[in-house]
Amino acid sequence: MPLPDPFLHALQSIFGDDVHTGMAERLAYAYDNSRLNAQPDAVVFPTEHTQVEALVCACRQYRIPLVARGRGSNTTGATVPVEGGVVASFERMNRILRIDPANRLAVVEPGVINGDLQRALAPHGLFWPPDPSSSPWCSIGGNLACNAAGPRAVKYGTPRENTLGLRAVAGTGEGFRCGTFTSKGATGYDLTRLLIGSEGTLALVTEATLKLTPRPSAIRTLRATYRDVGTAAQAVARIMGQPVTPCALEFIDETALKLAHAHAGNDVPLAGALLMIEVDGEPDTLDAAVHAVSAAARGEGLESLHVATTTEEAQKLWAARKALSPAQRTIAPDKINEDVVVPVSRLPELVLGIRQLAAEHDVLVVTFGHAGNGNLHVNLLPRDAAERERAQACLAAVFARVIELGGTLSGEHGIGRAKREFMPLALQPATLHLMREVKRAFDPDGILNPGKLLP
Amino acid sequence: MPLPDPFLHALQSIFGDDVHTGMAERLAYAYDNSRLNAQPDAVVFPTEHTQVEALVCACRQYRIPLVARGRGSNTTGATVPVEGGVVASFERMNRILRIDPANRLAVVEPGVINGDLQRALAPHGLFWPPDPSSSPWCSIGGNLACNAAGPRAVKYGTPRENTLGLRAVAGTGEGFRCGTFTSKGATGYDLTRLLIGSEGTLALVTEATLKLTPRPSAIRTLRATYRDVGTAAQAVARIMGQPVTPCALEFIDETALKLAHAHAGNDVPLAGALLMIEVDGEPDTLDAAVHAVSAAARGEGLESLHVATTTEEAQKLWAARKALSPAQRTIAPDKINEDVVVPVSRLPELVLGIRQLAAEHDVLVVTFGHAGNGNLHVNLLPRDAAERERAQACLAAVFARVIELGGTLSGEHGIGRAKREFMPLALQPATLHLMREVKRAFDPDGILNPGKLLP
Ligand SMILES: Cc1cc2nc3c(=O)[nH]c(=O)nc-3n(C[C@H](O)[C@H](O)[C@H](O)COP(=O)(O)OP(=O)(O)OC[C@H]3O[C@@H](n4cnc5c(N)ncnc54)[C@H](O)[C@@H]3O)c2cc1C
Ligand SMILES: Cc1cc2nc3c(=O)[nH]c(=O)nc-3n(C[C@H](O)[C@H](O)[C@H](O)COP(=O)(O)OP(=O)(O)OC[C@H]3O[C@@H](n4cnc5c(N)ncnc54)[C@H](O)[C@@H]3O)c2cc1C
Repeated sequence: MPLPDPFLHALQSIFGDDVHTGMAERLAYAYDNSRLNAQPDAVVFPTEHTQVEALVCACRQYRIPLVARGRGSNTTGATVPVEGGVVASFERMNRILRIDPANRLAVVEPGVINGDLQRALAPHGLFWPPDPSSSPWCSIGGNLACNAAGPRAVKYGTPRENTLGLRAVAGTGEGFRCGTFTSKGATGYDLTRLLIGSEGTLALVTEATLKLTPRPSAIRTLRATYRDVGTAAQAVARIMGQPVTPCALEFIDETALKLAHAHAGNDVPLAGALLMIEVDGEPDTLDAAVHAVSAAARGEGLESLHVATTTEEAQKLWAARKALSPAQRTIAPDKINEDVVVPVSRLPELVLGIRQLAAEHDVLVVTFGHAGNGNLHVNLLPRDAAERERAQACLAAVFARVIELGGTLSGEHGIGRAKREFMPLALQPATLHLMREVKRAFDPDGILNPGKLLP
Repeated sequence: MPLPDPFLHALQSIFGDDVHTGMAERLAYAYDNSRLNAQPDAVVFPTEHTQVEALVCACRQYRIPLVARGRGSNTTGATVPVEGGVVASFERMNRILRIDPANRLAVVEPGVINGDLQRALAPHGLFWPPDPSSSPWCSIGGNLACNAAGPRAVKYGTPRENTLGLRAVAGTGEGFRCGTFTSKGATGYDLTRLLIGSEGTLALVTEATLKLTPRPSAIRTLRATYRDVGTAAQAVARIMGQPVTPCALEFIDETALKLAHAHAGNDVPLAGALLMIEVDGEPDTLDAAVHAVSAAARGEGLESLHVATTTEEAQKLWAARKALSPAQRTIAPDKINEDVVVPVSRLPELVLGIRQLAAEHDVLVVTFGHAGNGNLHVNLLPRDAAERERAQACLAAVFARVIELGGTLSGEHGIGRAKREFMPLALQPATLHLMREVKRAFDPDGILNPGKLLP
């Protein structure tokens, strides 16, 4: 459906010649890191808050779907314009507006790349905790909209714990600020956290005030292997039960280790399960911290425990984790990539349950991920069309198992298009109803990222 | 206005004989720690989630105002039923339902007293970070509804950073769960944080899943005095600018020190400004941590720095802070008690600005509080009726100054009745409009705590 002319004129009055309706741009902004594909009718590149206000108002006036886009690295189809309309790519609105070490905050535009921000913060001895593996090419806007995180979340939290305030434009077309420039506040409803994780369905973020953390000056890497997943999970619970919280506590299951071993050779150990542990701190406190964490890692089922003493050794210990992605891609380019989360103590049940489901459905499945948060990547690796079909059935059973264990559908990737039909599994009808009412409050005409998040 | 009979019958069908409309109860639940007073028409004491659902439905059907109450210790009139109706006191819904050390969480009913929870957690080596000074008698429900905090927030955050999920009943009468039992989640809108800080205006909380933190096994107390507020504030910025975050970083101004000194004698030092600093950790890391924080505390203007080596010494160092409340009460029983917050680097401007305003308006004002968060208690201490009037004018000027400095109206006490008319100073019309729409989504008939929070 072509865009109405008066709407196109409105876009031109906002963006001048920079309104893209040609096939090349429409194709380039039709996909993300999911397998979905749908072309937008136009692509624009806002650089100023006022442009975004005008854009949303125009879309609202003509009831045109509007999809915010960072770098399109999400895995759930969250940026695919399934109902056409306009994609607003924030890639050019990418200035770091302020780094304020005295107040431990930075003010950034949404298109700033996570990795660029970290590099800019390093000379100040600061960092922003959210650290998705995609950090070299994903944007802060995307991180906020997905509540994206990574290994460090176990110690430092997710965007919800590390964002002070936002500037945004609601689906009503209203520009607004919410939150504070302070590390504390009790002045009205927390709209900041409401927007974080809302996947572009409530408002377009045009500026973010991020809470920064002093960067610990030293880090130590440990690798532990266990007889089986049960004893590894008990070690995770012991580690999380003592006061020194590691800054990474990653798990890899037996199947994943075998794959990685086949791909990368003997640097990758074979075991029932593997834990990668990192501890950070100041040099003169680090020995004691490593000692406490090692003590907790020891226990029934431990087969080996290595502590790296040099950077090279640390890199070698990470070999298994590093080899995982290419190893999976080699076998199954169409892998289905989930990130469920359960209470830490239920990890063994989850991993064993998934192993059972994989056998039942005859699908290759590996699990690995952020064990300290109970957040596991469950990757289904179908090797042909028939297995792809079985994988879909297996996936539904995995979600059901996760919910039974007191967990939820996504720890950090979000819902997008891919998981929204599973939302009623995780959320009560009353909760979904309230979410829909919140959506209506921000976006009464449903123009922002339609077809996403809410079923 | 007496309650309609059918509504009273509805209440009786929910609570049996336990519906209180007598003068004694109405008087007892007419006030909180503000100076406001207004009688409810009835008082009830829910003990079960289903009762709360039925209660909200009945109030909605008859359009009766409904005010949730914990222990009435808030300072903003947030629990005073200014439009009459029903007070639902959660004091009897006070069971700790589950302490789950392996998953670092506790599930509690809203009436649990903060201090009781901390005592129950201690044997597990865990604590819940929010620590208002009122902890011996305030409730978790009240803590969540106000986003109440205390000294530890500088290191461990507020309820928003320490709550995983909630069960609640919206103003629509719908019971719902939101959030997770996991330390991470990206499954839909964050209704949990939206309810935190909403002061009973969106939903009544009937259960909370709290994120627990391992209790560090040792703590060290430091006291530093400075020539003036400027150099003390610079020390605050230096301390917050290095990686070892203290678990308390409290400030006391010169006027407050003089008052406390007059009240408690020579244990309280006289100085331009005083910082109380606490550092926690494991015994073998603590020396290094104290060293790092002491180094940051040193600098221009430092007049003394004491590190306590015993519990008795630590208690003595806290003498100034402890003497403050009684000292103020002695002079000005009607003190006006605010808790504004500014970016840490603006603290000197704030304290000096307030001193200027105090002189201009001829009112005695002291400032002290959680300097690490930039959260200062600004207490106006009028000693007679004329000064009380001048204090009101001074207060408005203080708020205006705070906003100018990039701060906001409340760091931890909330808005309630007392500050809601100042909300337009802090929030843009568009932000307030969105908050009103969120209110409408949860409470379409405006029955929950009317006359509070939103102007
Ligand atoms: C190899 C790889 C590794 C990954 N590793 C991780 C990981 O470790 N942890 C993790 O959590 N995720 C990971 N991801 C997923 C993804 O990178 C993150 O979700 C990331 O936050 C997306 O950022 P983006 O800029 O690409 O956003 P996009 O994919 O462009 O958008 C994501 C969502 O954000 C919305 N959005 C973007 N900008 C705005 C804005 N300004 N206002 C409002 N909404 C906006 C979009 O509408 C969409 O809903 C990985 C992805 C890949 C491909
Ligand atoms: C001496 C003293 C010291 C204090 N020190 C501090 C401090 O250091 N830091 C700080 O932050 N505050 C402090 N306060 C303020 C106060 O104690 C806190 O705000 C506390 O959280 C209030 O808890 P409460 O149980 O008394 O709640 P109440 O005063 O009864 O209620 C407060 C708000 O919570 C709502 N509410 C209560 N229960 C529920 C529920 N179940 N569902 C929905 N809404 C609910 C009420 O409607 C109201 O809006 C202090 C107060 C006093 C008197």
